[in-house]
Amino acid sequence: MAEPVRVGVVGLGTVGSGVVRLLVESADHITRHAGRPIVVERAVCRDVGKDRGIKLAADRISTDIRTVSQDPSISVAALLVGGLEPARSMMVELLENGKDVVTANKALLAEHGPELFELARKKGRSIAFEAAVAGGIPIVAAIGECLAANRIERIRGILNGTSNFILSKMEEDGADYADVLKLAQAKGYAEADPAMDVDGTDATQKLAILAHLAFGVWVPWAEIPRTGIEGIDQGLMTYASELGYRIRLVARASRSDGELAMKVAPALVKIGTPLAETRGAYNAVSLVGDAVGRMFFHGLGAGQMPTASAVVADIIDTVVGRAAITFRTTGVLDAESPAARIDTADLHERHFLRVTASDRPGVLSRITGILGEHRISIASVIQHEPSEAAGGAVPLVIMTHACGANAMKKAVAHIDASDVVSAPSVCLSVLEE
Amino acid sequence: MAEPVRVGVVGLGTVGSGVVRLLVESADHITRHAGRPIVVERAVCRDVGKDRGIKLAADRISTDIRTVSQDPSISVAALLVGGLEPARSMMVELLENGKDVVTANKALLAEHGPELFELARKKGRSIAFEAAVAGGIPIVAAIGECLAANRIERIRGILNGTSNFILSKMEEDGADYADVLKLAQAKGYAEADPAMDVDGTDATQKLAILAHLAFGVWVPWAEIPRTGIEGIDQGLMTYASELGYRIRLVARASRSDGELAMKVAPALVKIGTPLAETRGAYNAVSLVGDAVGRMFFHGLGAGQMPTASAVVADIIDTVVGRAAITFRTTGVLDAESPAARIDTADLHERHFLRVTASDRPGVLSRITGILGEHRISIASVIQHEPSEAAGGAVPLVIMTHACGANAMKKAVAHIDASDVVSAPSVCLSVLEE
Repeated sequence: MAEPVRVGVVGLGTVGSGVVRLLVESADHITRHAGRPIVVERAVCRDVGKDRGIKLAADRISTDIRTVSQDPSISVAALLVGGLEPARSMMVELLENGKDVVTANKALLAEHGPELFELARKKGRSIAFEAAVAGGIPIVAAIGECLAANRIERIRGILNGTSNFILSKMEEDGADYADVLKLAQAKGYAEADPAMDVDGTDATQKLAILAHLAFGVWVPWAEIPRTGIEGIDQGLMTYASELGYRIRLVARASRSDGELAMKVAPALVKIGTPLAETRGAYNAVSLVGDAVGRMFFHGLGAGQMPTASAVVADIIDTVVGRAAITFRTTGVLDAESPAARIDTADLHERHFLRVTASDRPGVLSRITGILGEHRISIASVIQHEPSEAAGGAVPLVIMTHACGANAMKKAVAHIDASDVVSAPSVCLSVLEE
Repeated sequence: MAEPVRVGVVGLGTVGSGVVRLLVESADHITRHAGRPIVVERAVCRDVGKDRGIKLAADRISTDIRTVSQDPSISVAALLVGGLEPARSMMVELLENGKDVVTANKALLAEHGPELFELARKKGRSIAFEAAVAGGIPIVAAIGECLAANRIERIRGILNGTSNFILSKMEEDGADYADVLKLAQAKGYAEADPAMDVDGTDATQKLAILAHLAFGVWVPWAEIPRTGIEGIDQGLMTYASELGYRIRLVARASRSDGELAMKVAPALVKIGTPLAETRGAYNAVSLVGDAVGRMFFHGLGAGQMPTASAVVADIIDTVVGRAAITFRTTGVLDAESPAARIDTADLHERHFLRVTASDRPGVLSRITGILGEHRISIASVIQHEPSEAAGGAVPLVIMTHACGANAMKKAVAHIDASDVVSAPSVCLSVLEE
């Protein structure tokens, strides 16, 4: 048996503790896959005294990153600290000191990926990050290695478990957004501050990483058009369901004619399609490759052990040398990359529009007239009897035929500026497959 | 740019031609992933003169495997010949001459995997075989690499596209097995001789390969209990649907208490679950890992380009050195492997039973009595008015509560031996998730 490989675990939160647990409890199994034992030599955390229920001697835990970075016996570090700082400085410290790094931090890669990847390559080290996107689903390996013979044409993903839990729970229980959010927090699915989950930031950062793998560009994540789920109410869900759809927070990137369109927003997805059947805290990714056709992956996108599973797989990959090989060509598709035109103008698709109109004569004619002016053709309309509770406001739901997203945007602005509307309209893309 | 890598393509059937096409048409893209160009130096086929629409000069194609095996400039060979011979001899010839091999031949690996793997390891070569199971779905990489930190507890797959096309078409069109089989042959989904697809052989061979990856055992595929789809008729489909299920050919392997249960047979899968929603020529694999939880993969399991996508990914993996690393530990889980007890006795699950009974008094009581004797408890019964066409035979459909497969088998034998039955019963497992 070869010498053990010594790893440092930086960060002992939920994921870090899970990684230590997996490395200890499944040591025999992991040794066989790695060809040699993998031992946790050192761990770094903020609070050394805290009981995490992990089997690691107290003298192996410290608050100082240098106990890992400066230890020449450690060759691999798992960086499992969230957020940008001190995570960024820690990654730099580890790379500068010759450690290969495994991380689950999507915000860090989405924000500082280009310079961190460059530094790692300069130092001859690798960064492995399967756990940064869609937890246990091996989508990073799938795109970067298994589908390497394909030009990826389209990616659609449910990449944030918290918002998917909230949306599917609202749908199942008929409960309001605020109540379900509280439940998700109580159950530990949502953070005390769930802003980055529900406003689409987390999904957008993950999409930026997937786009780097699939299209070879680093798109600044903040430039990707993004809408969260805060505006989704039971009314929208009921109409969607009446029309045969569910509402999901969909992150998408697609390429056509060398241009890349990216977007994160709630969308109507047809009942029976894989994304619509993705419930609870699950994540899912569907993609289209020019050779392989349509593929779909589904699994737990977060949680201690699913994420630890991905981190430990990356540690094994690093130990055996696969990660170094893979990292050499990760995202280096520049010569054929689409100009990263982050624009939804190309997205020619159906739209679902809910207008909250005043209850007076001529309203429907006025709104459909505006859509007509923008050459948007209507597939169906739902207008129910106004309820007294709505105080004279009438929700009017329109499904359009396929039309450009830009034309739709202008039409909605036009409608919302008119005098027949009593609250802002909601416009969602409709995904048929 | 590094020197090109020269590969030999052995077999220019559908998949082989697709591989040449992909290597030629996506050369730029593949070069970036591999870090160097990959060129087809030589191809071998039975009929040199045949026009395959591929861009390969005639003088690079021959009928002699030695043009590949004896060419020192070729380091990787894609063996894309089906069946056992001459495929086995060709693989040996290639390995003996120091070529790394990529193959899509599941029959060959299921039958001769142990000795071929041993030979490759002895010669310091690798065998990569992503394309042998579930075509474009990267399930071999998923189990062997991405989920390496997990103990796999269960695998369930729809691994044969032809039989899934037939079953889902029968279901959608209400057509008979024989008619749909003819249609599948006309469309090219089924071979002229579809025996290995519809009798479950193909799915069983793929399951044997997955079990090697997941559980570290080589189970002789012919010892895995196997039932094909030839006995599935519209009557069974209608009852299944009435109860909320679809019929799929499911290949399964599960481990508990160190024992492995494997089986390939048509089963009832609940509508709305991923396997039930797998239609047409698609394949699907669901699995459970101890850390990652439930995962699901869905994609095209056959066809020229999806399979070529997997073959070329393996060629890239071989060229960059990942395949050699992976192959070292492929399936080497022996120390903890379950005794390969191929037995369905452990499968404690619900069953769907259709008895074709004579239309006379006391029949239902007799049959339920026999089930009771075997301690099988009944969840529901469907008995419709007998049709005149059935000539006095009454189909009686019984859903049981969970019971041992062995007890069920004995009870069915007992029922079929009784004098109230006019045709053999059909008994299918019921999978709720």
